[in-house]
Amino acid sequence: LTPGPTDPLHVLIASYLDEREVRRIEQVDPRIRVLNAPELLPIPRYAADHNGSHRALSETELAKWQDLLALADVSYDFDWHRPADLLSTAPKLRWVQATSSGIGEFLTDTGLINSGITFTTAAGVHAVPLAEFVTMGLLYLVKEVPMLRGQMRRHLWERYTTHSLAGKRALVVGMGNVGRQVALHLSALGVHVTGASRTPGTPPPGVGTVVALSELHSVLPDIDALVLCSPLSASTYRLIGAAELEAMPRGCLVVNVARGQVIDETALIAALESGHLGGAVLDVVESEPLPGDSPLWDRENVLISPHSASTLVDENARIVDIFVTNLTRWLRGETLVNVFARTDALTG
Amino acid sequence: LTPGPTDPLHVLIASYLDEREVRRIEQVDPRIRVLNAPELLPIPRYAADHNGSHRALSETELAKWQDLLALADVSYDFDWHRPADLLSTAPKLRWVQATSSGIGEFLTDTGLINSGITFTTAAGVHAVPLAEFVTMGLLYLVKEVPMLRGQMRRHLWERYTTHSLAGKRALVVGMGNVGRQVALHLSALGVHVTGASRTPGTPPPGVGTVVALSELHSVLPDIDALVLCSPLSASTYRLIGAAELEAMPRGCLVVNVARGQVIDETALIAALESGHLGGAVLDVVESEPLPGDSPLWDRENVLISPHSASTLVDENARIVDIFVTNLTRWLRGETLVNVFARTDALTG
Repeated sequence: LTPGPTDPLHVLIASYLDEREVRRIEQVDPRIRVLNAPELLPIPRYAADHNGSHRALSETELAKWQDLLALADVSYDFDWHRPADLLSTAPKLRWVQATSSGIGEFLTDTGLINSGITFTTAAGVHAVPLAEFVTMGLLYLVKEVPMLRGQMRRHLWERYTTHSLAGKRALVVGMGNVGRQVALHLSALGVHVTGASRTPGTPPPGVGTVVALSELHSVLPDIDALVLCSPLSASTYRLIGAAELEAMPRGCLVVNVARGQVIDETALIAALESGHLGGAVLDVVESEPLPGDSPLWDRENVLISPHSASTLVDENARIVDIFVTNLTRWLRGETLVNVFARTDALTG
Repeated sequence: LTPGPTDPLHVLIASYLDEREVRRIEQVDPRIRVLNAPELLPIPRYAADHNGSHRALSETELAKWQDLLALADVSYDFDWHRPADLLSTAPKLRWVQATSSGIGEFLTDTGLINSGITFTTAAGVHAVPLAEFVTMGLLYLVKEVPMLRGQMRRHLWERYTTHSLAGKRALVVGMGNVGRQVALHLSALGVHVTGASRTPGTPPPGVGTVVALSELHSVLPDIDALVLCSPLSASTYRLIGAAELEAMPRGCLVVNVARGQVIDETALIAALESGHLGGAVLDVVESEPLPGDSPLWDRENVLISPHSASTLVDENARIVDIFVTNLTRWLRGETLVNVFARTDALTG
């Protein structure tokens, strides 16, 4: 599998990277032949946009893209054009370095999960910004910022009594990179963190105990906040439904930086509308973009981020760090980092 | 000074405490005679309101209050009625346990600073809630919550690229209880913290270096956020003016949990309006309540809290903790904790 000492390794750049990052990839090894045609790639709408607006390409241009795909041994990101056809359009392809962490649903939808291609994720890149988003979201609600903004709109200086985040109890579902970073942040602020994981084991730093996903109900009545950080998988699909929300105490807060499908959104909306939940901070929703008529848009105690809390201005450089590490390992025949584990992918 | 083994110690309750807290004070020592007339005290407008709405008291009721003052050896909080006359109305008074941390301005304004009375403060009680407010405020601006709320108002799902608080550089002015707690919180989130203090010394945990207040200009050009946590004193009055704001990089954030007078508010508003500052989070303003026509009310990148960020629902219990400790020490003739240091009080 490892290319010989003079065999070229064709590396396709399938989502836009600036010249500086492309050079870093090129410089990993003399055997690397970068296939980079930025004029064919979707145009990023913001820094580190891995989807971008598709160009209106001519037949000739599309044919050129197909030629590049046909040559690729390795790809940085998936084919933006016909991702589900990757097995036929890129017959030499052995490995894709994804630019996101949660690719299980995508691989399932495209059927690529059943291919022999190795997939590596961007896991880890998003842990700090997502943990910061979680901390911000909890403080936003605990410190009653919506009330403060309401007073500001009325030019009203009216004193109030506030609550402390310190001493609150949070259940963090998912003990991967993101959940562990969330636990570090929250515990540093005095929050008592319980973890939940498909495979509970020794609690990571900042976590009191870790329970199994099947034991959530033993913890839900005693928390002030639920933070979802798990991958979307068969075991987390609609993990939080009406019964789980009901089991949480009145006033409990929900933060979701996992995937929208981890919560039953209808039940979430009902629990917000009844006043059972104290608020929700959502970077992800069941159907994205969130439909214009969703009642979530207009709630004062809800904060919506359009699936962007993980996207940092300098994120491409950090993903290329992972890719460069992996290219070095690939060329040496070593195990890659961040390999996507198919075992827990969404199947239902 | 210490009462003899049978001498009574008259302890006046001068701001409302619930019965449970009054009992804790009473139970410190058999010599304690609590003077508690809640029916005469201002009515708290919110939990742990230490000012409250004044009652319309009859002459007889006011005379009763004067009688209690005249008996008091020790007072929990200042006289709500005629605080500046305390020396004549409470001639036996030796010690006042205040319910706030920043009492320098009040003591100066009332002239009590020149009395022989010992004052102890509530310092420490407010450190965690204020540090949480600071962390919330920085995350609120760094994570662009005002933009997110704007998108929500328009039901707009438009992805964006965000910034990380980790890696940013903050200058925390004031290395007392609040500043040290702020440094602990921010450094745990990966912020590089520099401190500034009237008396720089060994940096406390979470702080890289501590500079003198006179050396601020050496630090200001290299920060992303300025956090004011100092007491108001002669050395911090209008510490931050137009020149200091100008020295900070474009986009810099300002958080003030100290006193409004530490910043020149006109210069602050100008720096916000010109776009030089990226935003401000203010628990305090120069003149409180903030005047209805202040331009601060309507700015998207400003968050105003009506001097309440330190006020916790259970704050009275925490202040009574300090008072109970101090009563024990007072009766034993030991040094009190949280004694107000007159040396740095506001004189100009």
